[in-house]
Formats: sequence, C-alpha cells, structure tokens
Amino acid sequence: MRDNVLALKVVLASGEVMTTSRRARKSSTGYDLTRLIFGAEGTLGVITELTLKLHGIPEEISAGFCVFPSIKACCDAAVMAVQTGIPIARVELLDEVQVRVCNAYSKLNIPESPMLFLEFHGTSAGVAEQSKRFGEIARQFDGGAFQWSIKSEDRNRLWQTRHDVHWALGAYRPGAKVVVTDVCVPISRLAECVTETKRDIDQSRLLAPIVGHVGDGNFHASILVMMDDHEEVKRAKGCIERLTERALAMEGTCTGEHGIGQGKKHFLEPEHGSTTLEATRAIKHALDPDHIMNPGKIL
Amino acid sequence: MRDNVLALKVVLASGEVMTTSRRARKSSTGYDLTRLIFGAEGTLGVITELTLKLHGIPEEISAGFCVFPSIKACCDAAVMAVQTGIPIARVELLDEVQVRVCNAYSKLNIPESPMLFLEFHGTSAGVAEQSKRFGEIARQFDGGAFQWSIKSEDRNRLWQTRHDVHWALGAYRPGAKVVVTDVCVPISRLAECVTETKRDIDQSRLLAPIVGHVGDGNFHASILVMMDDHEEVKRAKGCIERLTERALAMEGTCTGEHGIGQGKKHFLEPEHGSTTLEATRAIKHALDPDHIMNPGKIL
Repeated sequence: MRDNVLALKVVLASGEVMTTSRRARKSSTGYDLTRLIFGAEGTLGVITELTLKLHGIPEEISAGFCVFPSIKACCDAAVMAVQTGIPIARVELLDEVQVRVCNAYSKLNIPESPMLFLEFHGTSAGVAEQSKRFGEIARQFDGGAFQWSIKSEDRNRLWQTRHDVHWALGAYRPGAKVVVTDVCVPISRLAECVTETKRDIDQSRLLAPIVGHVGDGNFHASILVMMDDHEEVKRAKGCIERLTERALAMEGTCTGEHGIGQGKKHFLEPEHGSTTLEATRAIKHALDPDHIMNPGKIL
Repeated sequence: MRDNVLALKVVLASGEVMTTSRRARKSSTGYDLTRLIFGAEGTLGVITELTLKLHGIPEEISAGFCVFPSIKACCDAAVMAVQTGIPIARVELLDEVQVRVCNAYSKLNIPESPMLFLEFHGTSAGVAEQSKRFGEIARQFDGGAFQWSIKSEDRNRLWQTRHDVHWALGAYRPGAKVVVTDVCVPISRLAECVTETKRDIDQSRLLAPIVGHVGDGNFHASILVMMDDHEEVKRAKGCIERLTERALAMEGTCTGEHGIGQGKKHFLEPEHGSTTLEATRAIKHALDPDHIMNPGKIL
C-alpha cells in the first residue's frame, strides 16, 4: 500500500495543515515526510487527504489455487516462481487449519492441506503462459493440480473465500475473540518461521489458523481465544510473544502490516536498538512536543 | 531506486550508529527512518551500509526504439501503452537534439526526431507480444517502425547509446560545461512541460538536449554552457528557473532525482509551503542540533 501513496495532507499537533508532496510520481525535494507520517500510526499528525498512484486494470487476470503437502512446499513453490521471473500479482498462503475454517464457512470441500491462492495479470497469452508455468513448478513441489480460471465470476468466488477469512474465523468457534497478530521475515526464512509457529500453536493447545503473503514474507496468525478463560488468554499471549521473538531472531520484523500500537511497544528496542529508538523519540518530540497526537502509541 | 532500499546503517550527528530497519521486505515497526534518511542528502546522517531488494533476471528481455514526429506523440504513445496494461520495464525519451548528439558521438544515423527507447521483460512469448503491441500503438501516434531485438548484444549496443549520453554531451560542444537539471510533473502534463521547455530553450538561444523518464513524468535538460560567457550563464540560469516554475505550476516537483542541494533551496517553500518547511527544519534540528551534517544543503 505505502508504495502507492504519493502525498498526504496532514493536520499537525500545532493545528497547522501541511501537504507532504505533490502529484508527481517521483520527487527528491526535501525530506520524505509522506512515508514518515504514513507509517507513524497517527502519532505525528492526523491524515486528512491522500494522493494515490493509479494502476490500469490488466487486460486479463487469471486466478487459481493449488494444495501442497506442507507449508514448506507452498513457500518453496512460490519462491521458485518468483525466482524464475514469473510475475505473480498476488500469492496468499493458507495453512490446513485455515482451509478447514474456510471450508466450513464457505461450504467448500478443498482438501485440508496447506494451499496457495494465486493471481496473474497480463495479456491473455501472458496469463495462460504464467498459469501453465506455475502449474509445472507446483508439480515439482508435489503440489496438486493447479486449478485456474480467467472468468471473473470464478475468480471472484475464489477470492471471496479468502476475503471471508475474518468472518469464517468468527463463526468457527462461537464466543471466541479473533486475536490477530502478524510478523514479517526474509522470504528465505518464511517456511521455517511458519512451521515452527504452527508447532508452537499446537503445543500451546491453541486454535490459530495462519494466512501468509508469501511474496513479502509476511504472515498472520489469528488466535481464536475465549477471553473469559484467563489461562487460555495467557497461553495466547505467550504464543504471540514467542512468535515475535522468533521473527526477530530470523532477521525479521515484529509487525509487517498491523503496526506497533500498544501491544508491541516493548519490541521496538529489541528490533531496532536504542539509538534508533532515541532518533524516533527526537522526531516525535520535534513534531508533537506536548505528545497530544495518538498518545501512548508506538512510544 | 528508493523503493528497492530496505534498510540503512547510518552514522548520526552524535557519532552513534543506527540501523533503520531489518531484512524483511515489509515492516510497520515504528517510523520509516529508512526513507527519511535516504532522501535527506546527507543532512541527517552519513549512510554507511544499504540493504537492497534483489530482483531476478527476467527469462527474456527485449529492447527497441521508435522515432516519432513530436515529443507529444512520444509521450502519448508511452502513456497509451501504460494505460492498456503493457508492462514496460524501461522507457526513455530523447528529444531530436539529444538524438543528434548521440548520432555524432556513437556514429549512428537514427532519424533526428524525438524517440523512445523501450525495454520489455518476461517470457519469450511475453516480450514478443508486448513488443508487437507497442509497435501497434506507436503506429497510431505516427511513430516509425518499432525496431526491437531480444539479442543481448543488440540490446547492449542500443542502451550503450543511452548510457553514453553524458559523454556525448561533453564531446558535442568542446569547452562547454554540461549543466544538468531535472523536474518531475504528473505524467498527463509531461508532453506539455517538455514542449514548452524546448520552446524556452530555443528562445533563450541555448543548446540543451532533453532526456526523459516517461513512465515517471521526470525529465532532464542538459544545458551546454560556456562558463566564461557570463551573458550565456545568465541565460542558462534564467531557463532553469523558468523550467522549475513551469513544473511547479503543473503540480510537479522542482526535482525528481537530483535533489535540492544548494541550487534549488529557494524552491522548497514555493513547492511545499511554509508549514512543511517548518516541520522539515524541526526534524533536522532534532537529529542534528548543531547542523554539522552536510551543512548548507536543503535547508
């Protein structure tokens, strides 16, 4: 998302309004305040307008899915596809627990095994070629048949399942809260990180399906927690802490998309070190000396 | 370039060393200090290490060029190609003056008319299809035959001409200094901005070939100036000032790639406004209170 944000209009702590950039796609004019403020979770100012890059709708889009015997096979196939230069527009990993949850909610009968959802963009010949090549790669990693379609109704039905993940989770264990967390690791460590996390989830006796953005090394665990069961809440918290420590140990980051908020403040120093944290504090203090913008978040 | 920079190691004004991010491709962990410092022209710290994203070499690359009757036709063809979803990996505009300069230096005989250099990445079938489609679009805008090749020796020879632009400029008017400047405008205004700039160059009796990155709306004018001719130097300065004002009037930026340095400091406030400039000053002061990092630049 952030790469598509060209400029912001921002209300600062002083009450003044600033525009961070202009409509040009590229600029080297002064400090990059767009990215600084966009990722600051409201602690440097309130964003009131965004200028976004637009992308043309591709001539043709194909989407499909493929089941694999393991998380590692899913990741290896996706990485191999990227490395051989197949331009994958979207690639999403679902673990077998998430597939089971989706099957139950969306009345499907996808084999309950880790799977990839994929999308290719291009010309008709291009997407056909990319889909075919991905199918060949999938076979190398013992994937099932790669079922794909260019019909928009098929594609929408397929993605609907993915988009319904949140609702499917809510319905799967009635009464449970969906506690979501995310980390991001170098792509080369993704399979290892997800596999170890799944083992930890099992050992912690938790129900926590995993969805991953394989192209980025980013994945989400959604822990279904009965909030009135204090012992279970404690197990969930422990699992999230260990997941974050695991990601950091693999040169990853404690959150790829969700942000620091309040819950991950204590990971900022382990991740970045004290000098970076001091620089962050100095910037916060420079732009919001009275700490009135989204107080208590990040810092 | 900046989208490919994942993390920096930076020596701060305090002498302390910080790392701005980790190896994960995506992070939402605290302020985006990578982009802040990367674009700060050394005024916030000295970058001593970079972590970069790597891209696979495409299976096939095709490159080619096409001459057009006007700058507008060049831009319109490139924009049409982008809008119809042809994934152009590189597209460079050369005006007819730059073509003449390249012909002289590289012993070529390309028609002396505005032209586009293009490159497509993908599978063999993909680049062939993209090249063919671009050829059809070029014809719609009265472009000459789109001559393309997938042979790496042909491609290298072609790009060598583009890469030699700087040397070709130096050789074209012996004794002259190559004074380069750049601006960036919304792509929809690029043809208009380049056309008006060329008119200004002619009226100012200057020799200033133009090279543009059409995909970004960014272009460079290289003015060949005899620095001991004070009257000519004055005409060149006036032309650069008007070019920058023209870009700002078109919702563009006073520099897309080169940066502010010392020469464009007076455009920072007209471009961004005083509130943004104050925020920039506050950040500079927070991280470098004694103003010892690259003093006198940007601010």
